[in-house]
Amino acid sequence: MERVFNFSAGPSVLPVPVLEKVQKELVSYGTSGMSVMEMSHRSAEFEGIIKKCESLLRELLEIPSNYKVLFLQGGASTQFSMIPLNLLSKYKKAAYINTGTWSKKAISEAKKYGDVDVIASSEDENFSYIPNLEDLALFEQYDYLHITTNNTIEGTKYSTYPKTNSPLVADFSSNILSEPIDVSQFGLIYAGAQKNIGPAGLTIVIIREDLIGSADKNCPTMLDYKTHVEASSLYNTPPTFSIYVAKLVLEWIKESGGLNSIYQTNLLKAQLLYDFIDQSDLFSSPVKKENRSLMNIPFTSTSDELNKQFLAQANSAGLVNLEGHRSVGGMRASIYNAMPLEGVEKLVHFMSQFEKKIVEEIVR
Amino acid sequence: MERVFNFSAGPSVLPVPVLEKVQKELVSYGTSGMSVMEMSHRSAEFEGIIKKCESLLRELLEIPSNYKVLFLQGGASTQFSMIPLNLLSKYKKAAYINTGTWSKKAISEAKKYGDVDVIASSEDENFSYIPNLEDLALFEQYDYLHITTNNTIEGTKYSTYPKTNSPLVADFSSNILSEPIDVSQFGLIYAGAQKNIGPAGLTIVIIREDLIGSADKNCPTMLDYKTHVEASSLYNTPPTFSIYVAKLVLEWIKESGGLNSIYQTNLLKAQLLYDFIDQSDLFSSPVKKENRSLMNIPFTSTSDELNKQFLAQANSAGLVNLEGHRSVGGMRASIYNAMPLEGVEKLVHFMSQFEKKIVEEIVR
Ligand SMILES: Cc1ncc(COP(=O)(O)O)c(C=O)c1O
Ligand SMILES: Cc1ncc(COP(=O)(O)O)c(C=O)c1O
Ligand SMILES: [Mg+2]
Ligand SMILES: [Mg+2]
Ligand SMILES: [Mg+2]
Ligand SMILES: [Mg+2]
Repeated sequence: MERVFNFSAGPSVLPVPVLEKVQKELVSYGTSGMSVMEMSHRSAEFEGIIKKCESLLRELLEIPSNYKVLFLQGGASTQFSMIPLNLLSKYKKAAYINTGTWSKKAISEAKKYGDVDVIASSEDENFSYIPNLEDLALFEQYDYLHITTNNTIEGTKYSTYPKTNSPLVADFSSNILSEPIDVSQFGLIYAGAQKNIGPAGLTIVIIREDLIGSADKNCPTMLDYKTHVEASSLYNTPPTFSIYVAKLVLEWIKESGGLNSIYQTNLLKAQLLYDFIDQSDLFSSPVKKENRSLMNIPFTSTSDELNKQFLAQANSAGLVNLEGHRSVGGMRASIYNAMPLEGVEKLVHFMSQFEKKIVEEIVR
Repeated sequence: MERVFNFSAGPSVLPVPVLEKVQKELVSYGTSGMSVMEMSHRSAEFEGIIKKCESLLRELLEIPSNYKVLFLQGGASTQFSMIPLNLLSKYKKAAYINTGTWSKKAISEAKKYGDVDVIASSEDENFSYIPNLEDLALFEQYDYLHITTNNTIEGTKYSTYPKTNSPLVADFSSNILSEPIDVSQFGLIYAGAQKNIGPAGLTIVIIREDLIGSADKNCPTMLDYKTHVEASSLYNTPPTFSIYVAKLVLEWIKESGGLNSIYQTNLLKAQLLYDFIDQSDLFSSPVKKENRSLMNIPFTSTSDELNKQFLAQANSAGLVNLEGHRSVGGMRASIYNAMPLEGVEKLVHFMSQFEKKIVEEIVR
């Protein structure tokens, strides 16, 4: 079966060279005589894999030495609980910025464990923008400020991050590794792996050392960052195979020139699609220009009926998973790191052909 | 690289036909044009996989219709918290039987959330047996009774399960699917996948319906069974690839004749090793005969020095991961479902050759 172009929001496309390497090594890895899936997480071989995975991540993101890197389970959704359980230690109060579905989930979970102030929101305009953060006063009465750096469903991203004296906690699930960032701006960064890192079932947490060790005493052991820091992510059996694939993805990013180079390609890919959408009479983007995501690009045609036709025909043309999230409808092209430029070109070409046909039908 | 015989306690050996199938389908699954790792968990294709995985598990274990099957993350270690958080609803008190390292971890976690009575223990004799359960009075003042059906580190297993009016909660991590069981005896069964089910990163929970929905109101959403029951394990992104491999393992078990047939082979493999150990002057088993595990077989020679020699030479002969758990030392052969009879035969042959050499050296 020929491969399609997969615009899924997550789990999502992986680099073909990574998949081919996984395939080659699947039954017997290196000189181990076994599959990575069969390896004890305490074996020298697997320790080599997880250590390399961490060092690549540190290198690519230039993570300062006072940050720990954790390989966890439970998805970003489990972080929605772990963050307040671990960080609401002094003021028992946190600030959240509400920029969409995932922010809202993070907010409602945090409310179980302390006071939550939603200090800014873009809900008034359907989350089509990122609130202006210049108005944000510096504050110190919060244990942390939580943001969602890229809103997977709504297609927005922060261009600058809020300046704050409280630790900045950031859900980077859908744009981690898509561009260089200054990790030292953040207290904690987290991301489910299933977009830019690797297979589902792995969650990456990057946490500043001073934020470790203040969890509530009734915090479940597995939800206490300290547990995993002390055991170097080997407190219990980690998702070994996902960590191995993540390592290969990080190697692929490095070989592709690192985050600067990946970022340039991402800008190019997104620009291609946004430019087409903006000049098109049929398609439009709901998102304010300066807040547009490079990873998730929602768009619509002029009617639900045309959206449906578009999606069906795109699917037949090997451009798949272009449906918008069930909560918003329309279309969404998720063009993560592993989506080749060729995939976006094909999509834009297909969109322009589709538009032409529609116009011709109307004229006829 | 030729494959070795891998006696790891977990993650552990997988059936070769499963690995070969995974390899074949790795880059492009069926007619999907993508890897299973790249599939949206909400796609029709993946829904087919997870539904099939559940129906195979139901068929093989003959799970009654008033039980739900959940595919979760976090390992068995997260269940140590989820169980008390969800089940300590009426008496706020649970009974635990302490049969080893994993029981102890389950106990200490439960103590965070309610009263715990350790109603039986084999700690007095180094966990080398399962406490006699005939003395156990029926009791009703507990929300549940927790047991570890197979003690991975100590090499013991229950031959009969305690009769109780409280729901019986069982950690089946290291012997699920190794023999037929009567699921209706249990209120909740859980197991990390990485022994008899599939790759690490997936946890299976089988829960009787009446035990769902009584979680503490501050229970993290991701730790509430109800969350996952209501969403059919798709509340958030599940470990999709591990679920796919688990499905292949279940198909392999079915093709191997189901649990009766698997059980007969497991009896044969274990008997071969125990018989050799028992007649040997060099090797011995620390475990009481009637409580010996079919899956994890600890043994020792007569000295630490000989153990070391044995492990090194076995390793060179392609019999790997025979080290006992770091907490107990000696040797341990984990011979899960996927360990072929040939692997055990090779091990027994190697042990007898090793013994011969030792005897000859002494004589000389
Ligand atoms: C920004 C963001 N946060 C959180 C999540 C939830 O992640 P998970 O499914 O790993 O729990 C998602 C999933 O798509 C997401 O896009
Ligand atoms: C019986 C038993 N329970 C619990 C665990 C812990 O499982 P996990 O590493 O998935 O948390 C293990 C791991 O080997 C085990 O053997
Ligand atoms: Mg969102
Ligand atoms: Mg337009
Ligand atoms: Mg044990
Ligand atoms: Mg003996």
